[in-house]
This record gives sequence, structure tokens and C-alpha cells, in this order.
Amino acid sequence: MTKRFAPLFAPRSVAFIGASKDPRKWGFNMLNTFIRGGFPGKIYPVNHTEDEILGLKVYKSVSDIPQGPDLVVIVVPPPSVNAVIRECVSKGVGAGIVITAGFAELGGEGARLQNEMVDIARRGSMALVGPNCNGIMNPWEKLHIQFVEFFAPPGPIAVVAQSGNVLDSVVRQVMLRGMGCSLCIASGNEADLHIEDYLEYLADDPQTKVILSYIEGFKDGQRFIEVASEVSKKKPIVMVKAGKTEAGAKAAMSHTASVAGSDAIFDAVCKQSGVIRAKNLDELVHIGIALLQQPLPQGRKVGIVTGGGGWGVLAADACTELSLEVVTLPEDTIRELDTVMPAWWNRGNPVDLVAGRSREAVFKGIEILLRCPVVDAVMMLSIMPAMGFERFRASAGKVDKEIVVQAVVEAMNEFNQLAQKYGKPVVAASEQMFSDAAQETQINYAVGQHNSICHQFPHQAAAVLAALASYGEYLERNKLA
Amino acid sequence: MTKRFAPLFAPRSVAFIGASKDPRKWGFNMLNTFIRGGFPGKIYPVNHTEDEILGLKVYKSVSDIPQGPDLVVIVVPPPSVNAVIRECVSKGVGAGIVITAGFAELGGEGARLQNEMVDIARRGSMALVGPNCNGIMNPWEKLHIQFVEFFAPPGPIAVVAQSGNVLDSVVRQVMLRGMGCSLCIASGNEADLHIEDYLEYLADDPQTKVILSYIEGFKDGQRFIEVASEVSKKKPIVMVKAGKTEAGAKAAMSHTASVAGSDAIFDAVCKQSGVIRAKNLDELVHIGIALLQQPLPQGRKVGIVTGGGGWGVLAADACTELSLEVVTLPEDTIRELDTVMPAWWNRGNPVDLVAGRSREAVFKGIEILLRCPVVDAVMMLSIMPAMGFERFRASAGKVDKEIVVQAVVEAMNEFNQLAQKYGKPVVAASEQMFSDAAQETQINYAVGQHNSICHQFPHQAAAVLAALASYGEYLERNKLA
Repeated sequence: MTKRFAPLFAPRSVAFIGASKDPRKWGFNMLNTFIRGGFPGKIYPVNHTEDEILGLKVYKSVSDIPQGPDLVVIVVPPPSVNAVIRECVSKGVGAGIVITAGFAELGGEGARLQNEMVDIARRGSMALVGPNCNGIMNPWEKLHIQFVEFFAPPGPIAVVAQSGNVLDSVVRQVMLRGMGCSLCIASGNEADLHIEDYLEYLADDPQTKVILSYIEGFKDGQRFIEVASEVSKKKPIVMVKAGKTEAGAKAAMSHTASVAGSDAIFDAVCKQSGVIRAKNLDELVHIGIALLQQPLPQGRKVGIVTGGGGWGVLAADACTELSLEVVTLPEDTIRELDTVMPAWWNRGNPVDLVAGRSREAVFKGIEILLRCPVVDAVMMLSIMPAMGFERFRASAGKVDKEIVVQAVVEAMNEFNQLAQKYGKPVVAASEQMFSDAAQETQINYAVGQHNSICHQFPHQAAAVLAALASYGEYLERNKLA
Repeated sequence: MTKRFAPLFAPRSVAFIGASKDPRKWGFNMLNTFIRGGFPGKIYPVNHTEDEILGLKVYKSVSDIPQGPDLVVIVVPPPSVNAVIRECVSKGVGAGIVITAGFAELGGEGARLQNEMVDIARRGSMALVGPNCNGIMNPWEKLHIQFVEFFAPPGPIAVVAQSGNVLDSVVRQVMLRGMGCSLCIASGNEADLHIEDYLEYLADDPQTKVILSYIEGFKDGQRFIEVASEVSKKKPIVMVKAGKTEAGAKAAMSHTASVAGSDAIFDAVCKQSGVIRAKNLDELVHIGIALLQQPLPQGRKVGIVTGGGGWGVLAADACTELSLEVVTLPEDTIRELDTVMPAWWNRGNPVDLVAGRSREAVFKGIEILLRCPVVDAVMMLSIMPAMGFERFRASAGKVDKEIVVQAVVEAMNEFNQLAQKYGKPVVAASEQMFSDAAQETQINYAVGQHNSICHQFPHQAAAVLAALASYGEYLERNKLA
């Protein structure tokens, strides 16, 4: 970890300036969540009037703290923030997170205060996150500087978002999928540290395998292109860009003082820098997880195996709309499929399994497509036949629900093994027919524990394949360059 | 219920022709699921060689059944189907569901057999569903003719789908949302009964409040326009149309022998007939549920209240992209909002609540927007402040998870009451910050028990509002006409 970022992302001691006893206040909630998150280092609440908060000794000011702190979290009202930062600089504090809002996003005096803030911090070599943000999380260090009490487990996914509530949404989606995070940053107004600084850091962070991001606007578009182009060569960046429309851009300006810029230009920026653009927040998470373990396709030709005809039609539409090609299968592949399919199969792509195929036939079918030289990627839909559902039925025909979760995990793991074997992605989407809602949740979680995802609908799987293809194309272009 | 449909949708006795003891066969699974579904009438398995299946006396043929049946389910191989239908006609059976595949979707001999089938049935006044389908469900009658064992509770949502697995997907989404179905029909190849017949029936079905449909192609486009235009005046039809692309259309042809037709023409058809087009299956369900209890907006001007800035930006983008207007709030509305918002609020639309607002302030804010004459609909995002989250915290600051579900239900009910009071829709989207995955599932279910839905993401809420607006416009045009 670079010296600059060590106090921010791996501090040994953290002070909360503006800590409070009042459960309605941020100064209470941030500290409370932090304590519950299990931070192993020193915690110093700072407050003028209290002696003890949540069982911890309170200090009157940063200056009173005997040793450190490495990092300060600032939740005092806007007019007091800069004085606090000055004091921190004097004390030699290396990094600060300014939670407080009311700066550049209000314009006028707020903007002036923010400029002053940056000036003080930079002259004092203090790295600043925010202002107008809701914290950072480094689950590997049990560092949970966040408002709401939920704790992402450590994992491979980094999230950087200009919006705190979007950050929380994305992190929670990752958690519901049974996965964990390397570093989560609400970058807020990005007064001092910008998205580019975080990307540079994450490029070399050994825990981070993929970077998810939500952005409303860039402070320095040219630097973003330069940094993102380099980072993308090392690990993928997936991004949702908000402020696409006039109404959205207006909202972005009053939210984080971001100038959204032209959406068409951002599309071009993504193409140039290898950034994978996601349409919305669920797509962002889906693509991120897929990138963790799927091989990248060499092209855009897709073979589809489906347990249900309707899903095949929807998938073919979704692929085509995303410039993936539902490829015409060569005659020898059809002949190979003939050996595992019933006589009346549709002899086309999507390969419709026709209900009731055996588990073995499904996997053979997928493997035949993976071996086919014109197929770059396989989509498997409606995985019920791949689960070998006849196994679940006792003689009375009742489904044994306890082993359904395991059957999905096994099927997904076999898809992944085939993907690795042939170096081509195999993405899956399926309803979980044998499960009630609680069990479906369990399935998502259990599958995620294997770094995997079974999408709910075909259009989601298609979006993921298109993203993998685009990223593969970027890497290919840069290999040749 | 019309005489023609009574034996199909409310039979007193059902025969399964091709019933089997082999758990790998449809003839076993369909019968098994049907028995478990709790049908209160007579059940007659028909099989040449068995004496008893699943504890029921087996008949050698339909002719041997002493009384009835009203309805037959046919799962024999394709070459035997028409002989069976002939026998049913002789016996005076009123309706049949042909599960068996291998007809028009294969072309050639299959198409010839299907024509013959229709001919026999129509001359014998026997109504036929399918072939190449996976059944129908009427939960009000405990009639569960379906392959997989899950039982939708009775409710207000009808589903008609040309694809059986899409039908199951949609019904399951409805169930996961805590809601129920009036009638679910897998229409398959639509040899005899077409989508238009089902729509005509559902228009007058007192249990059905909204119709969801998945279609690959129409047998008679002109009749569809005529029927749908009339039905739409009584209750809304929401539809996903597959086969939009060349690859999708090809897949549709080999799936249900459907000619998909031009997508642009289908868009025009929807506009003309009041059919609400959904982009994908989850949108289909979301829109359907919203139509159950939301007033229709008088126009496309939206006011947004958000508990998180980033969500507001995403919502503004999503609304604009769907031709909803994020309206500029008049000065007196801003002044009214000043009375409930903190001094530094953004004084714009979206109305950013700024974290930590009281529950009361949230509802007052929504009501101010609803009273504003230029606002046609309200979107509420990130409902945490509306839940009064400070209520969940004991002195130690721990969230009492047991009442979180109840708090969401209460907030959603209050939104709905405000919507009714002002005759304008209030749609909500929120992360459930205080919940783990299992609890999120519980929340969806509990909210659904009140005919309501809290969307996961802003773009989903925007899609629902746009659908409500389009349907409102159709009804308005037809009122004037």
C-alpha cells in the first residue's frame, strides 16, 4: 500500500470528530456502526462536551488525542469543518473523511469553503475523501466507516461511487449474492481525491479483482481516460454513469456538484479506455461477478442451450439487440447434438432441450457447443434439467427441497469447469422452479460462495455476455497495439 | 362463465390420458402435481396397462370412464393424440389440453396432424388448449394442471403465455411477491383456442383484475387488435412480445410455430389497442402489480422524493428516457417544501430529503408534491427515512430486525393511502438497508399481501410509471371517442 493511502485504507487508529450520544445524529450512527464493525485498532470519539460515548473515552479535540490518529472522520457542521482539518494537519493526521454535506453542491459560499478545504489539506499532505459522502469500508481491515449497519465480508470486489446510497445499494447486492468486497468508497464531491486516484490505487491492490463504479461526472476527463486505459489492462472497471439526460444532469449538479457532460462522449470514453458500461445497478453487479471467473470470449458468437423454448426466444432477442450473434450451427455440430437429443429436436440455435432431458445429455450438449469452433460463448437457460430433478423425487413424487440448493450449486460448478476447460464463458439464467422465495435467496447466496451467479432472466445473461465480449475486445486491441 | 369455457376452467372431473407410474415421464408428473394441488373433483388416470397409479383407479380408455370427464389432459405421443381426441368427442368431453409437442412447430407431418386435430375438435365442439403446452392453473378451483409442483394462491392476476416455462416464470414471480393468480394458461401452439379467445374470456372473469401475457406471434393479428382494444377498456393487458429480432423470430418459429412479425408493427398495434408493452419478464410483473392499486396519472409530469441523492439522479435519467417529465416545481410548492425541509435542501426536483429527515417530514413532502397541480405522479426513492428508522434502535443502537418488515409495510400502505386520497400514483423503490436477504424476501412478500410492490431500483419504478401513464392515455382517448 502506498504511503499516502495507508492511513486512509488501513489506519491503526481512527478519530470521530463530531461524535454524538444522540441516536438521531450521524455522529452517533457512524461511530456506533464503526464499533459494531469490529475495528481492531484505537477509536477516539471527539466532542466538546461529552466524557463518554458508547463506552469510549471522549476527547475534547484532535489535539488532545495522545497518539495518532491515522484517520479522522469528520461529521461536524459545514462552518466548522475547515478549522477541524487545520487542527488535523497540525497534528500530522494523514487522512480524513468529510461526511458533512453543504459544500460545492450548494455553490456560492459552499464552493468557496470546499476550495479552502482542499487547499488546507493538500498543503498539509492530508488525503481527503468527500465531502458530502457517507464513508468507506475495507472489510479486510474491519474498517466500516458507514451510516447503516450492514457489514460486507472481505472479498474481491471494489466499489467506488460518488453517491453514498448507491454505494450501499451496490454493496448490498454483492452481499445478497454471497460475495464480499475489497474496498468500498463513497467519493462524494471528490474535492481532493478523485475517482482517478482511487482507480490507480485499486489497480495495484492485491485483494481487488474487479472494480465497480457509479459516477455522475468527472473533474478531469482527460486524466480519467489516461488512468482508466491503464487500469483496464490490469483489471476490469465496470461503470454506471448517471446524469445522462438533462433532468439527470441537473440533479447530479445539485447532488455532488458534478458536471455530467455528454452521454455520447462518455460512451466514446468507455470504448477508448476499456471501461465496461453497465445500464443500471443490477447489471453493474452481474457483470462484476461474471468477470471474476468467466474466461473472456474471443468473439461475439453465442450458442444457446435452453430447458424452455420461450426463454430461448427471449435470449435470442436479447443477444441480437446487444450485437451478439446467435450463430448458425455447422452441420457436424448438429450431427453431434443428434446423438444426445431426441429425434424431434429443433436442430437449431437455441438448442431446445425439450423438457425431460437427462442431466448427462444437458452437459454433453453444452460441451458439444463449446467444442464447436464458431461458438465463442455458451448461454445455458432454465437449468432444471441440468439439476437432474428426478433425483429430488421420492417415490411419492415429493420434491426433497433440502438438496435443491446443492443441486444448483453443483450444476453451476460444472458449467464453470466446462468454461475453464474450453476457455469460453458459460453463463446461466434460470427460474428456480423447486424453490420458494427464501430458498431462492439461499441459492443465490450459495452459488455466490463459488464466485458464480445464476441470473434470473435471459436478458441479464445476455448483458453479461456482451460485457465480457467488449472487455475481451479491449484487451485484444491493446495486446496488438 | 360461458358454457364453452366451463369444462376447461371449472371442470368437475378431469381425466389424464397417458398417465404413468414412471417418475421420469410427463404422464406421472402432471398427474402427481394435479393430485397434490388438491383438486376437489373426480380424477381419472387413463392407461392401457396399469390398474392403479398414485392410489387412483386407472381406466383403459376415456370410453370406460363411468361419468364425464368434463376435461381431458392429453400426454400420449403425437401419433396417438388425434385418435384420443376423436374418442373424447364421441364421449361428449367438453374440453382438452394437449400437452404433447411435435406438431406445427416441426412443420410437415406435424403441421398436418395439428390441422386434423383442430378439425376433429371443432366439429365435436371440444375446446382445445395447446398442443405443445404445459397446462393451465385455476387456483380458485384448485385446478393445477402443470408440470412442476408449485401452487399459486388464488388472486387477481391472469397470465397467458405461449411458452410454458415463461408462464411458470411469471407465475413464480407473482408468488414471490406475495400475490396470487386468477387463471394461468400456457397456450402453446394455439391450434384451436387463440390468445384472443382467452382475452375475451378474461375480460368478463370477475376474479381477474389485470392480464399479463407473453406472446411470440399472432394467428390473426386483425382479430387481436379488435379484441384487445375492447378488453383494454375493461381491464389492462400487459404484454411481452418475443421474436423481435431475426434470431428471436427464427427461434419462435421452431418453438411454437409462431410468425413473429415486425416489431415496429407490434408497437403500433399496442398503441392502437391499449396493450401495455413490457420490455422483459420482470417489468411485466411489476407493471401488473402496480395496475392493481395505483390510480392512473392524468399526465406524464413526475415529482420525485428521494432519501438518497444518487438514486434521484438515476431516477431522473430513467424517467426522461421513458418520456416522463421531471417537472420544474412551481415557486409556491418550493415554499411549502421549505417548511418541512432543512435550510440547505436543494430546492429542486428530485426533492433530496437529505439523510436523517423525520418520518413525518417525508410524508408531508410527498403530500405537498401530490397537491401540486403540475405534478401527475410521485416517485418515492430510498424509503429508509419513511420507515422512521430511529424507532428500530434500542439504546445500544442495535436495529430491531423483527419490526423492519412491518415498518416497510406501514410506509407502503401510507404511500398507497396518499395515492388514493389525491388520485395520483405514488410508486416506490428502495434498497432494504436493514435487512438480510431472507428478510428482503419477507418484505417483498408482506408488501405484496397488500397488493403493493416496492421496487428494487429506480429504473423499475420509472418503467411502471410510464406504463401507468400510457394506459391512462388510452382510456382517456377512448372516453373522448
